[in-house]
Amino acid sequence: MRVLAFLDGTLADPDATHLRVDDLGVLRGDGIFETILVTDGKPRELEAHLDRLARSAAMMDLPRPDRPAWERATRQVIDNWPDSSEIAIKLVYTRGIEGDPDSTPTAFALGMEIDGKVKRARADGIAAVTLERGIDAGLAERAPWLLLGAKSLSYAVNMAAVREANRRGAADVIFTATDGSVLEGPTSSVVVARGRTLYTPPPTLGILPGTTHGAVFRAAESAGWTTKVEPVAAADLRSADGVFLASSVRKLTRVHTLDGERLPDSTLLHAELASAYDAQYE
Amino acid sequence: MRVLAFLDGTLADPDATHLRVDDLGVLRGDGIFETILVTDGKPRELEAHLDRLARSAAMMDLPRPDRPAWERATRQVIDNWPDSSEIAIKLVYTRGIEGDPDSTPTAFALGMEIDGKVKRARADGIAAVTLERGIDAGLAERAPWLLLGAKSLSYAVNMAAVREANRRGAADVIFTATDGSVLEGPTSSVVVARGRTLYTPPPTLGILPGTTHGAVFRAAESAGWTTKVEPVAAADLRSADGVFLASSVRKLTRVHTLDGERLPDSTLLHAELASAYDAQYE
Repeated sequence: MRVLAFLDGTLADPDATHLRVDDLGVLRGDGIFETILVTDGKPRELEAHLDRLARSAAMMDLPRPDRPAWERATRQVIDNWPDSSEIAIKLVYTRGIEGDPDSTPTAFALGMEIDGKVKRARADGIAAVTLERGIDAGLAERAPWLLLGAKSLSYAVNMAAVREANRRGAADVIFTATDGSVLEGPTSSVVVARGRTLYTPPPTLGILPGTTHGAVFRAAESAGWTTKVEPVAAADLRSADGVFLASSVRKLTRVHTLDGERLPDSTLLHAELASAYDAQYE
Repeated sequence: MRVLAFLDGTLADPDATHLRVDDLGVLRGDGIFETILVTDGKPRELEAHLDRLARSAAMMDLPRPDRPAWERATRQVIDNWPDSSEIAIKLVYTRGIEGDPDSTPTAFALGMEIDGKVKRARADGIAAVTLERGIDAGLAERAPWLLLGAKSLSYAVNMAAVREANRRGAADVIFTATDGSVLEGPTSSVVVARGRTLYTPPPTLGILPGTTHGAVFRAAESAGWTTKVEPVAAADLRSADGVFLASSVRKLTRVHTLDGERLPDSTLLHAELASAYDAQYE
């Protein structure tokens, strides 16, 4: 099931063709996106997602996104979703047609069902592997043209990393920097629990500022947790009380196995954090 | 002027829409491409391009490209090009529709005119800047999931680097590795002349094996040059007799200015090499 709305608010048939072959989104992966979870007809963290869309656009010299128009397209998808099931809405914004100076960005919101596999992972947890991302801690600041921390459409590497994880019998990846510190997942943030403190690595390392981890941290703080945005050594993950991947569609998913090794059981911890996160939207 | 052929050999209107919004080419930059120069109705280095397309497909776990079908689609574009002008034909091959297990790759050949700016650069040379690519020499071999050396559609970083060059008053980029050695351009190989020897860095560094530099080397060898595929220090570019960017559409383009500094005049050297390269196709 898919529902498609363009930025002017018009609905379109998602099974029809709408893009030219010379759209820079396809020719160059040249554009940005966001994925928003909708539960009970309400988009979660819409403001944070639109903030990040604007931030990605600025990093890639794209025209500033028209915020009310994106809100309207998001609403169009929600209003036309046929039932009360969860929706993952992708906002996609490309540089438009190659070689056409008059071209405007291609922009649409696409509502998609949540995969059964994702729902099972939320409940059962997943196995993950650490994979080197090949970047050092200062690179993002030194070399902004590498777009580290921009949510671009150029995700071929992220997808290849997940295939590598699958080959190793795991479902997902935790990327590491050259100094062995934790970065992020290919489509998620990493959240680590130790005692009553939650940790996540800082965006200055060249990773995305996670909207879901932000919401998890907010909920945890309200429940008396301490939260810290600071570097986390991959070698320390094994001894943590909980390792989680946070993203819009997977919410907070527990990593039960890392690099083939079973991690300490974090079932109760996960239940507490996941329900505190969900409670914010009820 | 554009001419579009799909992989089954059918022609289509390039100004019409042909792609779904949930094509993984646009949602994830998940696919590969080649760009082939056609002069006098003949595609240059077609075999080398199709070899590299197959190599990129293997690196990204895409189905093996149907070689005769790609040859036919390329021929269709050439046969339907309305005049005798040069053509840049892009072969594009994406993973198909997101979430559809029965989806087959999206595959087309798109003939495009050569930009006037590119033609002027071939004649006049360009200014380039060196920009850090943030990868070390062993990374490509250690971490194949980073797809270093695959010609994927995820080119947002390559395009951002060119915009950074423009901001610095230059037209193009020479990427450098963390150890200061030369890698490649965002859409080209780097060729360096010193005495009667041509140098280019090895693909094991995580760069594309260039089809055009291959042809330039072949031509130069026939003319008595020595050619070497070995690491080149960026610091040594200033003292070289010639620095060139090689790619299908730009052929061999002379770099006359690097990081704002005028390089030794390589006009005669360039004329010799460029005409040896062109002579192969006459």
